[in-house]
Amino acid sequence: MNYKIVGRINGEILLLEAFFMIPPLLISICDGTLGVTRAFLESMAIIIFVGGVLMAFTKDAKKKFYAREGLVCVGLAWIVMSVLGCLPFYLSGEIPGYINCLFEIVSGFTTTGASIVPNVELLSRGILYWRSFSHWVGGMGVLVFLLALVPTDSKGKGGFSVHLLRAESPGPSVGKIVPKMRQTAMILYLMYIGLTVLDFIFLMAGKMPLFDSVCTAFGTAGTGGFGIRADSFASYSPYLQNVTTIFMILFGVNFTCYYLLLVKQFKAVFSDEEIRLYFGIILVSIGLIAVNIRHMYGSLEETVRTAAFQVASIITTTGFATTDFDKWPVFSKTIILALMIVGACAGSTGGGLKCSRVLLLIKGLRRNIHSVLHPQRVQVVRINKRTVSENVLSNTNAYLSAYMLIIVVCVLILSLDEFSIEANLSAVLCTFNNIGPGLAEVGPASNFLAYGVLSKIVLIFCMLLGRLEIFPILVLFSSSTWKKMG
Amino acid sequence: MNYKIVGRINGEILLLEAFFMIPPLLISICDGTLGVTRAFLESMAIIIFVGGVLMAFTKDAKKKFYAREGLVCVGLAWIVMSVLGCLPFYLSGEIPGYINCLFEIVSGFTTTGASIVPNVELLSRGILYWRSFSHWVGGMGVLVFLLALVPTDSKGKGGFSVHLLRAESPGPSVGKIVPKMRQTAMILYLMYIGLTVLDFIFLMAGKMPLFDSVCTAFGTAGTGGFGIRADSFASYSPYLQNVTTIFMILFGVNFTCYYLLLVKQFKAVFSDEEIRLYFGIILVSIGLIAVNIRHMYGSLEETVRTAAFQVASIITTTGFATTDFDKWPVFSKTIILALMIVGACAGSTGGGLKCSRVLLLIKGLRRNIHSVLHPQRVQVVRINKRTVSENVLSNTNAYLSAYMLIIVVCVLILSLDEFSIEANLSAVLCTFNNIGPGLAEVGPASNFLAYGVLSKIVLIFCMLLGRLEIFPILVLFSSSTWKKMG
Repeated sequence: MNYKIVGRINGEILLLEAFFMIPPLLISICDGTLGVTRAFLESMAIIIFVGGVLMAFTKDAKKKFYAREGLVCVGLAWIVMSVLGCLPFYLSGEIPGYINCLFEIVSGFTTTGASIVPNVELLSRGILYWRSFSHWVGGMGVLVFLLALVPTDSKGKGGFSVHLLRAESPGPSVGKIVPKMRQTAMILYLMYIGLTVLDFIFLMAGKMPLFDSVCTAFGTAGTGGFGIRADSFASYSPYLQNVTTIFMILFGVNFTCYYLLLVKQFKAVFSDEEIRLYFGIILVSIGLIAVNIRHMYGSLEETVRTAAFQVASIITTTGFATTDFDKWPVFSKTIILALMIVGACAGSTGGGLKCSRVLLLIKGLRRNIHSVLHPQRVQVVRINKRTVSENVLSNTNAYLSAYMLIIVVCVLILSLDEFSIEANLSAVLCTFNNIGPGLAEVGPASNFLAYGVLSKIVLIFCMLLGRLEIFPILVLFSSSTWKKMG
Repeated sequence: MNYKIVGRINGEILLLEAFFMIPPLLISICDGTLGVTRAFLESMAIIIFVGGVLMAFTKDAKKKFYAREGLVCVGLAWIVMSVLGCLPFYLSGEIPGYINCLFEIVSGFTTTGASIVPNVELLSRGILYWRSFSHWVGGMGVLVFLLALVPTDSKGKGGFSVHLLRAESPGPSVGKIVPKMRQTAMILYLMYIGLTVLDFIFLMAGKMPLFDSVCTAFGTAGTGGFGIRADSFASYSPYLQNVTTIFMILFGVNFTCYYLLLVKQFKAVFSDEEIRLYFGIILVSIGLIAVNIRHMYGSLEETVRTAAFQVASIITTTGFATTDFDKWPVFSKTIILALMIVGACAGSTGGGLKCSRVLLLIKGLRRNIHSVLHPQRVQVVRINKRTVSENVLSNTNAYLSAYMLIIVVCVLILSLDEFSIEANLSAVLCTFNNIGPGLAEVGPASNFLAYGVLSKIVLIFCMLLGRLEIFPILVLFSSSTWKKMG
């Protein structure tokens, strides 16, 4: 293990984090909220100090960088960045208890949007901005941002950037958009910024206040879901709800598709199997739920709008809510639970299992039925007419095993808190899939504050495991990670 | 597809089924229950007629027999045997509604033990016997019985018996005990009969009435769980409860182990990883639950006895109950839910995912973490120091995918009946894993009668999918099964 390079990258990430705190600091100064201004200044000082020390001690880092270093780097960076990134919440005193602050910032960075704040309307604007911004930077990934920003000549060649991007980006297999990694990272962030600005403009056009528009655009882009109003999205106008529905769905699409659209490869996008599955599931779910909840809402327009908003919010794992879907009929609630598991497309900012993994699992299953019937024939799995490597299939299956195992263990630990099984299961599913609100005691109208410290720590790990897709966190606990290379 | 041989084996199975109806017929005659006697006579006549027709039209069956024929044979035989085997229930009028009768017999054959009978104490003894006996014959498998009984020279060589045994026996890979398949089947059934008789003797020694002892031994041996008293097992003495706890655990052990014990290969049994996992899970679960429910029961002895009985009943997927565990604290209920998924050992009469599959999934996951860390090294999965083939691993993973997919789809259909999500999820888990009682509306103190017809059909398929481990039923719906061989 090349400890020095891992330390160095963590140092760089911390300096970047301090830099990201400048806007909320300025907002706090403008608002004249002295306590919050001081909290941001103190946090930045601590973060710069720790980051600086890390940088100073790792000047002679060697350039050896393999998959192992990539995974450890990403896993550690996300933990370090959260442990220090929650300091503004803690030092300002606006969120009581360090574990609660940590829960809130991890929920932000991982774009979960599960909150332990009883009434967000009491928070100051600097804190609200930092909360929402954490969604935005966590959505596309902070190491990807670093890659796009920092010239690569400073850290060895080849392996470095590809291992980092692969470990931080969601999906079963990560492709480069263009041959150079740094350019890939830049293109991703440029498209991401572009779409976020577009969302912001549409929101402003709907007469949403400036600050609300910024925070909502951040939350939508990262598919995070932190609201800045106590009722999440219910009090915004139908226009604003519809705009957000559309943008949530757009941010759940694989960003490679937008690049393909930019270079006019329309056919590749429209025939993409994952995209088709994603939009297919969305349309069918909206239809089924709308029929099922028709009697609960006044007009057909309201029914469809409400169903569409919730479906988009859950499948993209955003977690905004315009209604308390815990009061829906069981059939609709079960669809919502199923959507939580499916999740958005690979290479988007959304969480969950990802549509492409669902595709791989179904196609893998079909292949095995064939091979059970005809043991003598060798068959391959194809997606978009390309053969999927056995390695990707095997990792997808391992992912599913890990997923099941982690869910069972976490639900078991949570059950010590004596909430209902429904609440515990949905709490784990919602944090692991980075969604936000669950059902029953943790439904859209409630929050996670009531859970004990142990449960909160478990849920914090669930969020990190979900966002980083298990392996970067899991390897931190594997002895073979820390052994000397053979 | 060799239709004739499939038809022929189905015919043989039906004749065997008619033969199995002789004891309950005799009981009905002794008891003087005329309606039931007539119901059995009519059922036998219909079954012999259908079986006879099948046999007559398939005299010239060719001996070509591959994996495909094996799967289809087993899948169809179980369906045909259930559709006709429930006739005594229907014709006697003791269970109203054909779907309810079908549900009850499938629940019997698949050793599920989920019942739609509100008060079993109102059923006549002939019907009770047939219900409990269906557990016994379904536990080890009816095609295995046929293999043990009928000389193999009548049906081609080689492939025939191995494909049938493989398709009907539970577990990720089925081993022969001795080189000859017919002998393997005979040894299995002899050990099975031996253990059942032993259980029966212990029950009689505890002053359980003769008829109760027979039915209880059948239910325990098949890990089925149909009780013949309304309160399942609560009113039996502590001695009888403990005997049943021990025998449930014994019937959840891989039967190959008993053969190894008979031929004095003790070391192979005690170092077997699946056996160790199985007993480890049982002991840990009993300990955790006992601590958790200590305050609910009078003495320590009662607490441990109750915890042990329920743990044994659920992990072996038997489903007897001495208490309403739906009233337990959430932590204990969650352990029970987790045990439902794990299940017993491969090659036992128990259902569930099986301990060996859990082992394979965990080891497969560990292998993949290593291969993510060190992509250049090739690693294999070993169980009991033997390398597991990639084929078995891939099928285990496909099994898990199918498992997840089926559960999501079935829970979704059930949710149309407006029961709670907890009830629907546990109903699907309990039928799919062949356990019996679930939680909430389908808990140990309630039953499945309230579900609608569609839900019952879904649950019937869940039971068959669970007992036959998905593939024999799934291939019936695959177009490639019915295509001509290339």
